[in-house]
Amino acid sequence: MRFLTAGESHGKCLTTIIEGVPAGLFITVDHINSELARRQSGYGRGGRMKIEKDTVEISSGVRGGYTLGSPIALTIINKDWENWKTIMSPTTSADLKSRFVSRPRPGHADLFGAIKYGHQDMRNVLERSSARETAARVAVGSIAKRILSMLDVDIFSHVIRIGQQEVKRELSFEEIKKNAPNSPVFCADSKTESEMLKEIEQCKLKGDTLGGIFEVIALNLPIGLGSYVHWDRKLDGRLAQSVMSIQAIKAVEIGMGKDSGELPGSKVHDEIMYDSQKGFYQKTNRAGGLIGGITTGAPLRVRATMKPIPTLMQPLSSVDFISKVNSPAATERSDVCAVPAASVVGEAAVAWVLAQAFLEMFGCDQMQDICKRVQEYRTYVRQI
Amino acid sequence: MRFLTAGESHGKCLTTIIEGVPAGLFITVDHINSELARRQSGYGRGGRMKIEKDTVEISSGVRGGYTLGSPIALTIINKDWENWKTIMSPTTSADLKSRFVSRPRPGHADLFGAIKYGHQDMRNVLERSSARETAARVAVGSIAKRILSMLDVDIFSHVIRIGQQEVKRELSFEEIKKNAPNSPVFCADSKTESEMLKEIEQCKLKGDTLGGIFEVIALNLPIGLGSYVHWDRKLDGRLAQSVMSIQAIKAVEIGMGKDSGELPGSKVHDEIMYDSQKGFYQKTNRAGGLIGGITTGAPLRVRATMKPIPTLMQPLSSVDFISKVNSPAATERSDVCAVPAASVVGEAAVAWVLAQAFLEMFGCDQMQDICKRVQEYRTYVRQI
Amino acid sequence: MRFLTAGESHGKCLTTIIEGVPAGLFITVDHINSELARRQSGYGRGGRMKIEKDTVEISSGVRGGYTLGSPIALTIINKDWENWKTIMSPTTSADLKSRFVSRPRPGHADLFGAIKYGHQDMRNVLERSSARETAARVAVGSIAKRILSMLDVDIFSHVIRIGQQEVKRELSFEEIKKNAPNSPVFCADSKTESEMLKEIEQCKLKGDTLGGIFEVIALNLPIGLGSYVHWDRKLDGRLAQSVMSIQAIKAVEIGMGKDSGELPGSKVHDEIMYDSQKGFYQKTNRAGGLIGGITTGAPLRVRATMKPIPTLMQPLSSVDFISKVNSPAATERSDVCAVPAASVVGEAAVAWVLAQAFLEMFGCDQMQDICKRVQEYRTYVRQI
Amino acid sequence: MRFLTAGESHGKCLTTIIEGVPAGLFITVDHINSELARRQSGYGRGGRMKIEKDTVEISSGVRGGYTLGSPIALTIINKDWENWKTIMSPTTSADLKSRFVSRPRPGHADLFGAIKYGHQDMRNVLERSSARETAARVAVGSIAKRILSMLDVDIFSHVIRIGQQEVKRELSFEEIKKNAPNSPVFCADSKTESEMLKEIEQCKLKGDTLGGIFEVIALNLPIGLGSYVHWDRKLDGRLAQSVMSIQAIKAVEIGMGKDSGELPGSKVHDEIMYDSQKGFYQKTNRAGGLIGGITTGAPLRVRATMKPIPTLMQPLSSVDFISKVNSPAATERSDVCAVPAASVVGEAAVAWVLAQAFLEMFGCDQMQDICKRVQEYRTYVRQI
Repeated sequence: MRFLTAGESHGKCLTTIIEGVPAGLFITVDHINSELARRQSGYGRGGRMKIEKDTVEISSGVRGGYTLGSPIALTIINKDWENWKTIMSPTTSADLKSRFVSRPRPGHADLFGAIKYGHQDMRNVLERSSARETAARVAVGSIAKRILSMLDVDIFSHVIRIGQQEVKRELSFEEIKKNAPNSPVFCADSKTESEMLKEIEQCKLKGDTLGGIFEVIALNLPIGLGSYVHWDRKLDGRLAQSVMSIQAIKAVEIGMGKDSGELPGSKVHDEIMYDSQKGFYQKTNRAGGLIGGITTGAPLRVRATMKPIPTLMQPLSSVDFISKVNSPAATERSDVCAVPAASVVGEAAVAWVLAQAFLEMFGCDQMQDICKRVQEYRTYVRQI
Repeated sequence: MRFLTAGESHGKCLTTIIEGVPAGLFITVDHINSELARRQSGYGRGGRMKIEKDTVEISSGVRGGYTLGSPIALTIINKDWENWKTIMSPTTSADLKSRFVSRPRPGHADLFGAIKYGHQDMRNVLERSSARETAARVAVGSIAKRILSMLDVDIFSHVIRIGQQEVKRELSFEEIKKNAPNSPVFCADSKTESEMLKEIEQCKLKGDTLGGIFEVIALNLPIGLGSYVHWDRKLDGRLAQSVMSIQAIKAVEIGMGKDSGELPGSKVHDEIMYDSQKGFYQKTNRAGGLIGGITTGAPLRVRATMKPIPTLMQPLSSVDFISKVNSPAATERSDVCAVPAASVVGEAAVAWVLAQAFLEMFGCDQMQDICKRVQEYRTYVRQI
Repeated sequence: MRFLTAGESHGKCLTTIIEGVPAGLFITVDHINSELARRQSGYGRGGRMKIEKDTVEISSGVRGGYTLGSPIALTIINKDWENWKTIMSPTTSADLKSRFVSRPRPGHADLFGAIKYGHQDMRNVLERSSARETAARVAVGSIAKRILSMLDVDIFSHVIRIGQQEVKRELSFEEIKKNAPNSPVFCADSKTESEMLKEIEQCKLKGDTLGGIFEVIALNLPIGLGSYVHWDRKLDGRLAQSVMSIQAIKAVEIGMGKDSGELPGSKVHDEIMYDSQKGFYQKTNRAGGLIGGITTGAPLRVRATMKPIPTLMQPLSSVDFISKVNSPAATERSDVCAVPAASVVGEAAVAWVLAQAFLEMFGCDQMQDICKRVQEYRTYVRQI
Repeated sequence: MRFLTAGESHGKCLTTIIEGVPAGLFITVDHINSELARRQSGYGRGGRMKIEKDTVEISSGVRGGYTLGSPIALTIINKDWENWKTIMSPTTSADLKSRFVSRPRPGHADLFGAIKYGHQDMRNVLERSSARETAARVAVGSIAKRILSMLDVDIFSHVIRIGQQEVKRELSFEEIKKNAPNSPVFCADSKTESEMLKEIEQCKLKGDTLGGIFEVIALNLPIGLGSYVHWDRKLDGRLAQSVMSIQAIKAVEIGMGKDSGELPGSKVHDEIMYDSQKGFYQKTNRAGGLIGGITTGAPLRVRATMKPIPTLMQPLSSVDFISKVNSPAATERSDVCAVPAASVVGEAAVAWVLAQAFLEMFGCDQMQDICKRVQEYRTYVRQI
């Protein structure tokens, strides 16, 4: 299973092709649209999110609600396209210079991308490096989530930190699943939630921005996804790549993550237990469901830290790319905090890697066969 | 450029093949052996490090000191092999059961690997999931470091934290390069170093183990390695995979890492400057040399958190794989802390990804051409 | 550089994403459309070719005529879509059964694909296994051809055989380039051409179909594309895969191809010569421009044999997939001979592999840099 | 499943690492050595084959006769190494110039490889481009054959043509399996065999060399290996790459191959039949077991044409690489005909692709599970 995405932020559309999805998976535009809507919700977003309500069109690979086994093409039209038609035209156009970007924004790829690819107009960079592309990744993830759902895997996410505000107490999975979706900041703890909202408001007044931390959790993964035999088959590495590659992510942790560097081994490792009903299990889950690059059967817990949004209303200083004159970075209407949205993207990024790992282990043709093989394997694991 | 490694921890040898190394790179066994020796040094190691002094044999791909362009095969003989010959024999042998492992060690892949691959004897798992394999990765990395060195890139690492002891002050690159290699714990700050040594000793007395944090730094990378155009070409993601896939790593951070989730954008992003001599640069380097998945020309800074070694002298509780009876985990002579060694592996993991990124951008046949193209590109960047 | 295509034969559109195209390549819809038109021309085609005049839309990756370095998305709308909208709908639809295909056509993937993917309606197979998908490959190839053109490589094709009619005499490259595009069967020899046309007419009367052979030629490739160092980097293997994967191709030959198995070495190998102006060259080019998996600097010559179209007006016998009753295969309005069209697809398949090989050898970011590096390399080769 | 090979023709050894072999596959050195011996037998070979009797050492990935799931490393020592030790030394050595190769041999990669990689001494090319490397591919193939054998697939090969001598009559699979292994030229037809032997003798007297054609056959493949959904998943393309990448192969055909371009569709396509016992099948197998890139359940038939060996005792003319002076190509003791050996390599190349296709479709962890899943699938296919 692999995918490519294409599309500029103000281009006509985002296009995605996913190759290798098994045949016989039930999938509707609603499955995808509901994930796209989740990505667009979340407190702290600026104007654009209100303009565009993303919806997907499935133009191939699905018929009568079921995947065909052939590549799936998804298109998300950019609602604002009419206003950018000539500016972003694939052909020459008088309008090409009308929104020329010559001042690189600190914290963005603008400058570095323009140098790498030889662009004068940094719009040619920002249109693609923009987090707009994450809509396509969420669409891809929504299909991965459909596969996981057929395999009885439950995946969800929540926001743990925004700026200085962090959830301090242990949350149960039930709380997270129940509260996070209803929270404007996808935070499952109501006390922290209100502090987060306050911090966002204050930050907005200062013309500044905020980052934070989210966690993705997957329940009911069987023992043995991934492998320890070669570095690039280790599931922790693959998850880390997938999550770190999301725009603005600067840290990825699994299980106790950074805390496991501070405590002694006796407080970090999980003792092994056995129960005649459920088979082998672990007393604790400090490892976050992954040891040696393979799943342990315990809940997978992946955390990611997002840096604050780089576009500030109180602009940082920059230098004009052409004239080399010092000048403040471009100020655009922008979000203050995108951590809730990022958590949805993170979920998609994790779901993709997990679904891939299942298909490698159980085959890739018919969804029905894969379900059956996974069930048989679960029974084998329990009875070992 | 790609590689495969093979070899069990107590097998005859570790074997590595690296395919895609340009022709004309000068490389000797000493380049590789000195990295292998660094991996084996570091305070806090147990007995095995004393038995085996790893040395490499180059059996193909290099002639008269220079790479041929053809695949490079490296072999690291396991010094202890004589004692394991029959136990680990590829053919049937009466001795196969003599060091049967039936009690899975918490924190190791033993149990999960045995279930995945259908093994009864968990030796069949631990022989490969063991960190012994990192010797092969260091050998691979030493070749990547030779490429980087020809391209004027300087890469090094140091230990920042062991257990509760963390370097608090800002260290200059000069200090790190000068002090870390001479420190028993690869720590560049002498005060923290002595506290680390103390903590290791105390931990050893308790039969416990310690983890920590190391940082890898690469200087003089040009702007533009990696790419923002597709998720799996983003250099941050690729570095995260490479580093997270090292045994026992639970967190990867780039630049400010987790701290970037706590501070406002004005304190996280790096303002852009220009100087007629050196071209564009940034006032600060909070991003750690990577923005939008591509290098910024500032020093690359990658941090990784290692969990404590799972094999404790005060064993954790486990369950016999066959009998299902509760029993303490196997206790083997083992290390207390492997963070210094891991920092060398981390350096190799980062060097590999960087060298790959150079070859993708500048071609892959003759080292001499690549050097010339990189120099031309550096001039272009400065003069933009 | 990589690509994915999606799209069913009677779906809404064919979608293609090409990732890794260098920035700064000039490309217009006309470049692509003219290749699509070539694929649709050629004598011996049935009705569909008249309905649909394929045209492409570029929806991302190109701005103001130049590639951005970001992924390129191409869409080719199926003109007939209105008539298939409900039949091929991604959602449930009353019409889904209206063009149910239950009799597998001999020579097609219908039966085998349905079994593999668990389909009842073989339309779910034929919609994707159909040669309609080659339009997307031609679109991809047209971008590869743009790259090759910037690098002074000339690529073209011609038809050598249709059924019993084969070009017997040696044709010069000039003749081929001049005559083939103007021939209804893309044959550069007028005598053979008229015999081919006659054979097609006769075959049509019998309700039968014809295959044949085409050749793809690329001029001015430098020495050294591909590599001999590892099996999957050999250019002959990669070309063979690309060409053999075209629908209905059953043989791929390079240079003398099969004939090189009949003659002694003294009549097969090419003697090496030297000229102070052009450097090393070969007296003959029996190897077809490839030795040991790398280009020799002589013209690349790849031949492919296409089997006759499987859908016959005089239907072969088949068995109903559901009822298991013997019944003649479905008869649809179809082409008699598609070899001319296949030659255009073959050109695209070869162009893709060659463009990839250039980017691997010379880097992949800016078209301008790549051109410069290729020129420098050509000079080096001449002066060796 | 993937592999890398390393090793120069006169280097110390050939090294191979195979990653992704399922656990629990029984494999011994004898399985591998017997394939290596087959590759070395065959009439028409020169001196080297007598010097070296290749034997393999398994240094990892197998324990007590069974694969561990971890990477398998194989080493084949070059028997003649003692005589080349200093000439081929990885370090600087006084002897490096002693067998300097400055006259490129027509038909070999010598010249083109030296230019590509910047070598002066063409030994640096020929050591790797040499067909010696095929010993490693045969070793890899022997493991793939073990997998196929567990899945009840039977794979074998025979020589069809040497120079002007070609098998004219239809051979049954039984004849081929019985006769070919006992023929000095691996030809299953005794009349053609004796003509082949004569032609080789005559050719030898003239100081010339011969090529030919071999065929690889695989029986009992299930319907559905490979896929039609994306070009690089088509099994015909993957087989073509694997076989064409073998040294000296210039044509690959599937089923009727080139002949399918000459006959009308009614004589090329295979009619579909049904039998309540065996399910769907085809009346004929002109397609050679592959349609639309997937297996049809009929025997797979792949043919390859090998060009004559390039090193002639009556040398062709060449040019000194350094002095540019015309001079005959180097003459070394060499083989007259290597088609029988190539057929063994071809078998390995096909076996590898087939084994990979099985693992993709049925999973990749435990051999036992894969066997069970394949059996279940075979039952499903029969009962459809």
